[in-house]
Amino acid sequence: MQKVFTMTGTVAFDPSTLKYNEAGLIPAIAQDENSGEVLMMAWMNMQAVEKTLSSGRVTYWSRSRQSFWIKGESSGHVQELVDFRVDCDRDCLLVVVRQTGPACHTNRRSCFYTAVRDGDEVELMSPMV
Amino acid sequence: MQKVFTMTGTVAFDPSTLKYNEAGLIPAIAQDENSGEVLMMAWMNMQAVEKTLSSGRVTYWSRSRQSFWIKGESSGHVQELVDFRVDCDRDCLLVVVRQTGPACHTNRRSCFYTAVRDGDEVELMSPMV
Repeated sequence: MQKVFTMTGTVAFDPSTLKYNEAGLIPAIAQDENSGEVLMMAWMNMQAVEKTLSSGRVTYWSRSRQSFWIKGESSGHVQELVDFRVDCDRDCLLVVVRQTGPACHTNRRSCFYTAVRDGDEVELMSPMV
Repeated sequence: MQKVFTMTGTVAFDPSTLKYNEAGLIPAIAQDENSGEVLMMAWMNMQAVEKTLSSGRVTYWSRSRQSFWIKGESSGHVQELVDFRVDCDRDCLLVVVRQTGPACHTNRRSCFYTAVRDGDEVELMSPMV
């Protein structure tokens, strides 16, 4: 007869159990801890996930530069990790962050500053000064 | 001498100007209009973008079924489009939605119900009843 084990403890997180795409990457959405605003979406590989969790500094994988991208390392616009979440399919991440300065390279608070309304593109926010 | 034209009007949105990946897809993040909660991430192709905008019902492209996925069509857990946003690189979308019922197929409000805290996975929310 098959024994049924009930989970009583917690499950240790293992970054290798995430589902990465054919390039070894997983999308990571960054959300502002205070405003709830969605700031940006970028990609992590398994090592970037590990670095983010161990350092508390959100670290992506730059597909264009093919290197780690510690967010804000050159600009100072760092993302301090507040909470790290995994979705139901384990193929997307949500990082809740404490964002210093603008998250977008255009100097806007969020990368999602363009809305489509009545068929037209509308700019929702200006670059921060 | 080159003439410089200043944009004074609005720019009409053209779904073909988005950057789709090699499979013709673009990631779309769904956010709840009221709570600001990030509900899920799924994919759209160009036609799904057009359908979402024309119908006001968020429509993804199901990679597993290779067909349009009008969110909630079978479950009733529809996403009414409130605002449609494009990011700075035009390679990611944010749809602000009025969500009926749970967004996640596990019956939870959001797909991001698992957090990683102190190395362990923690379940943040239970299925809705």
